[in-house]
Amino acid sequence: MSMMIEKNDIHKGLKNIYVTESRICLIDHKKGKIYYFGYDLDVLAEKSSFEEVLYLLLYGRLPSKREFNIFIDKIKSSMRLEEELRNLIQLIPKDVELMEGVRTVISYLGNLNGNGLDMTDKAIRDRAIDLVAKMPSIIAYLYRNRVGEDFLEPREDLSLAGNLLYLLTGNEYDVRDVKGLDMSLILYAEHGMNASTFAATVVASTGSDYYSSIVAGIGALRGPLHGYANTAALEQFIEIGGPENVEKWFEENIASRKRRLMGFGHRLYRIHDPRAKHYKRWLEENMNRFDTESRRVVETAFKLYEVAMNSFLAEKNIYPNCDYWSAQMYYALKLPKEVYTPIFAMSRISGWTAHIMEYIKENVLIRPRAYYIGERDKEFIPLEERE
Amino acid sequence: MSMMIEKNDIHKGLKNIYVTESRICLIDHKKGKIYYFGYDLDVLAEKSSFEEVLYLLLYGRLPSKREFNIFIDKIKSSMRLEEELRNLIQLIPKDVELMEGVRTVISYLGNLNGNGLDMTDKAIRDRAIDLVAKMPSIIAYLYRNRVGEDFLEPREDLSLAGNLLYLLTGNEYDVRDVKGLDMSLILYAEHGMNASTFAATVVASTGSDYYSSIVAGIGALRGPLHGYANTAALEQFIEIGGPENVEKWFEENIASRKRRLMGFGHRLYRIHDPRAKHYKRWLEENMNRFDTESRRVVETAFKLYEVAMNSFLAEKNIYPNCDYWSAQMYYALKLPKEVYTPIFAMSRISGWTAHIMEYIKENVLIRPRAYYIGERDKEFIPLEERE
Repeated sequence: MSMMIEKNDIHKGLKNIYVTESRICLIDHKKGKIYYFGYDLDVLAEKSSFEEVLYLLLYGRLPSKREFNIFIDKIKSSMRLEEELRNLIQLIPKDVELMEGVRTVISYLGNLNGNGLDMTDKAIRDRAIDLVAKMPSIIAYLYRNRVGEDFLEPREDLSLAGNLLYLLTGNEYDVRDVKGLDMSLILYAEHGMNASTFAATVVASTGSDYYSSIVAGIGALRGPLHGYANTAALEQFIEIGGPENVEKWFEENIASRKRRLMGFGHRLYRIHDPRAKHYKRWLEENMNRFDTESRRVVETAFKLYEVAMNSFLAEKNIYPNCDYWSAQMYYALKLPKEVYTPIFAMSRISGWTAHIMEYIKENVLIRPRAYYIGERDKEFIPLEERE
Repeated sequence: MSMMIEKNDIHKGLKNIYVTESRICLIDHKKGKIYYFGYDLDVLAEKSSFEEVLYLLLYGRLPSKREFNIFIDKIKSSMRLEEELRNLIQLIPKDVELMEGVRTVISYLGNLNGNGLDMTDKAIRDRAIDLVAKMPSIIAYLYRNRVGEDFLEPREDLSLAGNLLYLLTGNEYDVRDVKGLDMSLILYAEHGMNASTFAATVVASTGSDYYSSIVAGIGALRGPLHGYANTAALEQFIEIGGPENVEKWFEENIASRKRRLMGFGHRLYRIHDPRAKHYKRWLEENMNRFDTESRRVVETAFKLYEVAMNSFLAEKNIYPNCDYWSAQMYYALKLPKEVYTPIFAMSRISGWTAHIMEYIKENVLIRPRAYYIGERDKEFIPLEERE
């Protein structure tokens, strides 16, 4: 190790280091556009469905009508949780952070499904379909176990977004609400080589099984610097309490640089997050249907956005990311904040799976280096002779 | 994305990319030396114990006698598995690959222990001690559940290595056997920024909880390209069947380039793996105590080593790695091959933990890039209009 390296040869965070080529997601930071397998995400968000985007990410192309019908049948036949999974969920302590519960449930689902090292495209697709189909129940049951409510059965007449809403709350939702959550699942499905996708890819690069990779993705998304931005944003709106408090709160907390504004900024964007506008439009179009409580939170967030855009943040090109907006949608849909990140995970499993499948086709074990700066040749004094 | 990058700007596998500075492990590839926090691994393997090396990796220094006694007491008080963990283990299907079972058990242990996001040094150390102390029982119970044998209780009069042997087999072992396995745990404990350590670090970099990181490490070590080398090597010795078959088998399978020789080669070494000699010496010193079956396997491996060292492999500087030798030791210790990788995991948890603690102190979210080579601007035709 006599070779010296320069400080800037250490790529902490791997910023702007390309780890692979990929055909999955194009993020055009200058124009503010995202594409999944070549399709404009703005168009997918409006005209597609989460189920169709899941197909796109698993197969690399859109389905024919016939293929889509078969795909939907597969989803519907996988939605129910077998007895073993229900039993496991009831063993998980009620106060556990939901993402940590999701991690255990998915790991155990892998145990039940067996034959881990079959990593053919077909096996991976089958497992991904089965897993995503089960996620509404997994999330809802973990939440209901926590609050002591009975599990509901998934409904074949509802989409995955519809089942999420139904299984969590037991309520019927307006078609515009289901469409809103469906759009959110589309928008969260894929976003290049982010930290959770990378964690899943590192694990897959060892030749490991599908569930080990997904569980690594869950673990990474569970981190406050990654998948928790929407929950953190919501908590800040609640703390502010109302649009009338925004200016004072911003002055005291953000303008003073005492705290970071949650839901603002993204490593990749120095412009508006291309996904944000879809949420904003949905919130504006549906505001008149929200109850007083939801409207107050959304109005607080809109006012905070306005104040922030007239502050040093805009000068520094720090804009709200999509989590800032999704938090408002989820709140307006009466979803408990505990499920925000698990819903993100349910959507992102599709992107993780696409990257796993792509990476292992031309696999190279991911094994970087750490540059040693520690002590050398320390003398070992046996325990008996040590002070 | 109009910027073009060169093909060699894509660091597939992150070969020779430094992701961080580290004070934990120096691997001197030229001299064939490894150091943990500055201490020569050759000395640690001979004069230390796995428990002491665990302390070293968690605290960055060796303990005083008093500190070590307190540490050992902590380990002893954590060894037994609570009822919930035993119940969970019995829910895991018997035919599941043991590492996938370990993954679920550790994830669930995290659920039981709660308070995930406390990532202070003290919290992480306490969890690591608790987890490593429980690993002999976790591994043994998963294995015994598989083969339908009753669980045994960990013994306070035995070290962690001693408990591993006892809980798995129920037998009493010679002190030289316990010392051999203890040495193996020391040798496997840490090895720089390998794939599983990196997976754990990527997850930790999001601010996630300790168990999410460890579970990612388990998932990566489960991969055949990483932690399975010892099992694969053993399977090859068994396949060969005896030292008298080695030359013919080598000619047909390896010299002909039909197959890869398992347990040979390492991305970092073009010399003998510095850990190998310790295993080789133990095998030579204890050979006369092995039963006929074990001796045949070890003699096969020694003959295979001799043949390989006179082949194109030596010319290409491809030497046996430590897994080639540990497989023989574990076989001679009558350990079932299903537990080889889990034992590796038990040891390496100490290294993962050291890297997690170190990395998050000056944390930068690990978020690389993928270079887009896919299609652009594809026209979206709505499903109803699609063929």
